Amino acid sequence: MTFPFDRADPESAVAEMAARCSNWGRWGEHDVRGTLNHLDEAKRREAAALVRRGAVFSLAQRFDVDGPQRGWRRRTNPVHTMLDTGTDAAAGKQGFPHGIGGADDVVSMPLQCSTQWDGLGHIFDHAKAWNGRPAEEVVTAAGDHVTGIETVADGFTGRAVLLDAGRALGTGGELPDGYAITAQELTEIAERQGSPVGRGDIALVRTGQLARARRDGWGTYAGGPAPGLSFTTAEWLHGTEIAAVATDTWGVEVRPNEFDDAFQPLHQVAIPHIGLFLGEMWDLDALAADCAEDGQHAFLLTAAPIPITGAVGAPVNPIAVK
Amino acid sequence: MTFPFDRADPESAVAEMAARCSNWGRWGEHDVRGTLNHLDEAKRREAAALVRRGAVFSLAQRFDVDGPQRGWRRRTNPVHTMLDTGTDAAAGKQGFPHGIGGADDVVSMPLQCSTQWDGLGHIFDHAKAWNGRPAEEVVTAAGDHVTGIETVADGFTGRAVLLDAGRALGTGGELPDGYAITAQELTEIAERQGSPVGRGDIALVRTGQLARARRDGWGTYAGGPAPGLSFTTAEWLHGTEIAAVATDTWGVEVRPNEFDDAFQPLHQVAIPHIGLFLGEMWDLDALAADCAEDGQHAFLLTAAPIPITGAVGAPVNPIAVK
Amino acid sequence: MTFPFDRADPESAVAEMAARCSNWGRWGEHDVRGTLNHLDEAKRREAAALVRRGAVFSLAQRFDVDGPQRGWRRRTNPVHTMLDTGTDAAAGKQGFPHGIGGADDVVSMPLQCSTQWDGLGHIFDHAKAWNGRPAEEVVTAAGDHVTGIETVADGFTGRAVLLDAGRALGTGGELPDGYAITAQELTEIAERQGSPVGRGDIALVRTGQLARARRDGWGTYAGGPAPGLSFTTAEWLHGTEIAAVATDTWGVEVRPNEFDDAFQPLHQVAIPHIGLFLGEMWDLDALAADCAEDGQHAFLLTAAPIPITGAVGAPVNPIAVK
Amino acid sequence: MTFPFDRADPESAVAEMAARCSNWGRWGEHDVRGTLNHLDEAKRREAAALVRRGAVFSLAQRFDVDGPQRGWRRRTNPVHTMLDTGTDAAAGKQGFPHGIGGADDVVSMPLQCSTQWDGLGHIFDHAKAWNGRPAEEVVTAAGDHVTGIETVADGFTGRAVLLDAGRALGTGGELPDGYAITAQELTEIAERQGSPVGRGDIALVRTGQLARARRDGWGTYAGGPAPGLSFTTAEWLHGTEIAAVATDTWGVEVRPNEFDDAFQPLHQVAIPHIGLFLGEMWDLDALAADCAEDGQHAFLLTAAPIPITGAVGAPVNPIAVK
Repeated sequence: MTFPFDRADPESAVAEMAARCSNWGRWGEHDVRGTLNHLDEAKRREAAALVRRGAVFSLAQRFDVDGPQRGWRRRTNPVHTMLDTGTDAAAGKQGFPHGIGGADDVVSMPLQCSTQWDGLGHIFDHAKAWNGRPAEEVVTAAGDHVTGIETVADGFTGRAVLLDAGRALGTGGELPDGYAITAQELTEIAERQGSPVGRGDIALVRTGQLARARRDGWGTYAGGPAPGLSFTTAEWLHGTEIAAVATDTWGVEVRPNEFDDAFQPLHQVAIPHIGLFLGEMWDLDALAADCAEDGQHAFLLTAAPIPITGAVGAPVNPIAVK
Repeated sequence: MTFPFDRADPESAVAEMAARCSNWGRWGEHDVRGTLNHLDEAKRREAAALVRRGAVFSLAQRFDVDGPQRGWRRRTNPVHTMLDTGTDAAAGKQGFPHGIGGADDVVSMPLQCSTQWDGLGHIFDHAKAWNGRPAEEVVTAAGDHVTGIETVADGFTGRAVLLDAGRALGTGGELPDGYAITAQELTEIAERQGSPVGRGDIALVRTGQLARARRDGWGTYAGGPAPGLSFTTAEWLHGTEIAAVATDTWGVEVRPNEFDDAFQPLHQVAIPHIGLFLGEMWDLDALAADCAEDGQHAFLLTAAPIPITGAVGAPVNPIAVK
Repeated sequence: MTFPFDRADPESAVAEMAARCSNWGRWGEHDVRGTLNHLDEAKRREAAALVRRGAVFSLAQRFDVDGPQRGWRRRTNPVHTMLDTGTDAAAGKQGFPHGIGGADDVVSMPLQCSTQWDGLGHIFDHAKAWNGRPAEEVVTAAGDHVTGIETVADGFTGRAVLLDAGRALGTGGELPDGYAITAQELTEIAERQGSPVGRGDIALVRTGQLARARRDGWGTYAGGPAPGLSFTTAEWLHGTEIAAVATDTWGVEVRPNEFDDAFQPLHQVAIPHIGLFLGEMWDLDALAADCAEDGQHAFLLTAAPIPITGAVGAPVNPIAVK
Repeated sequence: MTFPFDRADPESAVAEMAARCSNWGRWGEHDVRGTLNHLDEAKRREAAALVRRGAVFSLAQRFDVDGPQRGWRRRTNPVHTMLDTGTDAAAGKQGFPHGIGGADDVVSMPLQCSTQWDGLGHIFDHAKAWNGRPAEEVVTAAGDHVTGIETVADGFTGRAVLLDAGRALGTGGELPDGYAITAQELTEIAERQGSPVGRGDIALVRTGQLARARRDGWGTYAGGPAPGLSFTTAEWLHGTEIAAVATDTWGVEVRPNEFDDAFQPLHQVAIPHIGLFLGEMWDLDALAADCAEDGQHAFLLTAAPIPITGAVGAPVNPIAVK
């Protein structure tokens, strides 16, 4: 399929796609849940019923200073420091009674430094946030007053489907950087796996890039070239009525983006217009290996963000149960 | 029941209880999972089967600067700041192409400032950590090298039982500060509710203190007087073979502690000797109201800590599904 | 003297005072130094010549978690944590060769949590920053692009005069909270001390409130009632052509402010209109005792802010030499 | 001069040099000021008298996320975020009365990320800190209880001498990485400049490496190869009775160190044994250009660390006045 947009004009492409995919007003003017509205109790019952073996998978990367961040837009890796230590306890330096000792710690980190959900206040299109709200009414220096991640603290439990694009389309389970996954490919993968993706599902798209970074070093994992969703998948993201989508890459969409000079145009449609939650830097490798082995690509997922008040993104330790 | 220990001698009481409840070596010398070893795939299947309605509850408090911390041992409330804002986007100050704008943020917080799990490196008894390891071999200023929370990132999904001590034993659903809940009371509550607590279960004990703090202000919620587990429940915590226990209070156990001069003696038995994970500052109120209404006190719980490498505690957004 | 403004109309009072005191354009449209333009090499020579004994005084409070902040506008006290410790070195846990060991540390703090300078980007009047610039052109979420504190890193060395209002006007060296110090009082104190205040000088006004807080506890030192400069001193601050002014209080000006419903109206004139640098939470007590003893109230001051790029305020350890 | 130590045995070399240079007990068993004891009121009078023109120089680098740190031992660059912004003020989002608006900010940073002083608790020799104290008695996870930087908040004002080794010994004003500056060279430079270095002085040694990093990029400035003081200068540092020494490099001493396998052996002598304060990452270039022009290499220096309680190092904005 040829790319149906003028690569020199991302602004028009975004506008056209936004018009096709907009969910503004669909759930009322006060809505803060976006596509999580697709995920209902019936879907959660369906998800729980997928648990057969009781096998469990954490889909989070480790959060530490050896992570992928390189300072782009002041995103650093987490800094974890101790307030009390075992060495102090052993040296008798803590002043507690009856032999008790303790260790305590602190973290300082960008909320999007590692495995995370983008909140609906994370991206704007021409200064419009989700549901058409003016960006300045939503996110000030005091945080996101409307769609802060705490408003969807309970939203990410349901049926998830792993779409292993790395295995289906790549070499050695990995897609090359710059590979733009299309809607047709996503549909075919789901069909071939026997796990259709539909309303209220959470789609997990594995590209294999994290496996490569794990093997070869982070390099430019945080922000550089990557396989990912084509801009053209916006209609699939909208039309399938999925509740959320997550990938094993820094930014969900293919990098470089498919326009001459662009920055994350799919985000610009997906978050403010579709109201879709994007998960980034998920570790799908162990889960994918298991799915390849047992052929079951649908499972129960609980991916609960830490509800930091007013956050436009949030760390998460997603748990899949099969 | 009279308190079976000399209130002037917590050190001996801890030693005696530790001897009775020790799990050291039970799962091999290299074990890092402690009582999570009780929670197996069968238990997770059982848990998933408890999902009837698909109703979902987040058991996390909000993480923000208006939290309960008052600086004790340098524990502050989270500070959330923005790296980019909607007002900046609206003012055209971001320099992105084709009308895309963004917001980004950072948090700095003690890992035990709000809803959290204590890791196994959090507490020592006479400089011994879980499984008998020397504290100084486990937690240095570089973090917990052995039992860091990342080692149990996938550990907290299973069957949980709400033991609503506030409703069962209190007034208006709340126990007074200083109320020491006994093992017998816990057993009776479980029986009355028709939800026995056994091997591999996660026990959630609601005292009602958080409801009171929500109504009356934080006061000394972080570290002051509180209802909670009696020191004497150590044997129940050990004997039931539960995987973990969490409460709606700052410190799980009753405060003031039941000795003349003591600091968290139940922690000193539970964490290093039993290898038990303690959850603190959970918000059990909405879940408890639902359980009171439908009479179902057992449910699927996923309480996945953010896997900060080497952390001795970790923020969590626990999700219950009924 | 009666207060010459309508206490019900701070907005008009600010406008009138701003018109009288404006320095906009005085040093060209690109100016970022404001009243530091008054402080020249001759003044620094004069200041150095004041050094007679070589006695030195640090005018900084200690920066730690036991400071005055109570969370107002997310201002917390500094959190200082260790990356490496002596206990770790002693326990042989650091992995360095030939017996070397080390300790290292981190701080997380609001830039205005303790002894500090307000930068020129700290306060706006009707969205106008210093020199008439639009606030949104000056300070975004990426910091102060124009008047960041780094632009005046070398600016605060000169002759300073201690105006000990606490001793001159108070009881036991302390003024009561709510005491509004007038321009006439400042002039009289300077005269009585024999240390006139004029062009390029840095005025240090001691109220005694810090001494009280040190004795009685912080209470509402950070933001509550305090002695301080009357709104009416704006003309004195402007007319004397001082380079900067600092006090031993949280906010320089008297609190409650002298209007029915107001917030720091003197700031609103002094920073954006006069271009004046305000120092807050300085510890003037030891210096003041010395000045009371030797009668010398003028001295060399070096008060160099940490040049954090884009900061609108900055911690400082001011050093007086007599 | 041949290197008078066995390059394969840094441990013995350190021991021998420590024995020759030890100041333990010199100022009593409770001393916390080390070589600052050499800097007295007479020296400060002498320093003030050096001010001729009133010219002022800030010797600090800018503190920001674009700094040299690359994560070594969790040292990151400073992260500066805003709590309030001008864009918010302009958008009317701050809720203040009478048209006042404000900006406020926060920093999170390692204390040794940029221009700084090493405190006496920063380095140990075989677990001994300054004055022979056991390291574990001095620095725990709660900080430096004995020699925290706040104890010398007023200590760094005096006569400083710039020793421009870059200009004297290098090419284009810069020494190559790995160049070990000797005591003889330091003495000759001082003599040639006509500015002898003696008791109580602060020596500023410029290598030119920062100028190179400014031109070519940070590269491995933080921890990599560098020109610097030879290990053999320990006796000069001790014998001259200087109060402190600072350089324009990350770590004062030459890198790689002059032993086959070593890490900062001069630190191991200078800090715990001599009790000497080391300044690192100072920006001496503008000052050096001025000194080269006017031939005056001695001046008044005020280099006051931010007194963070218990800190083993501290940011500083050093101010030279000529």
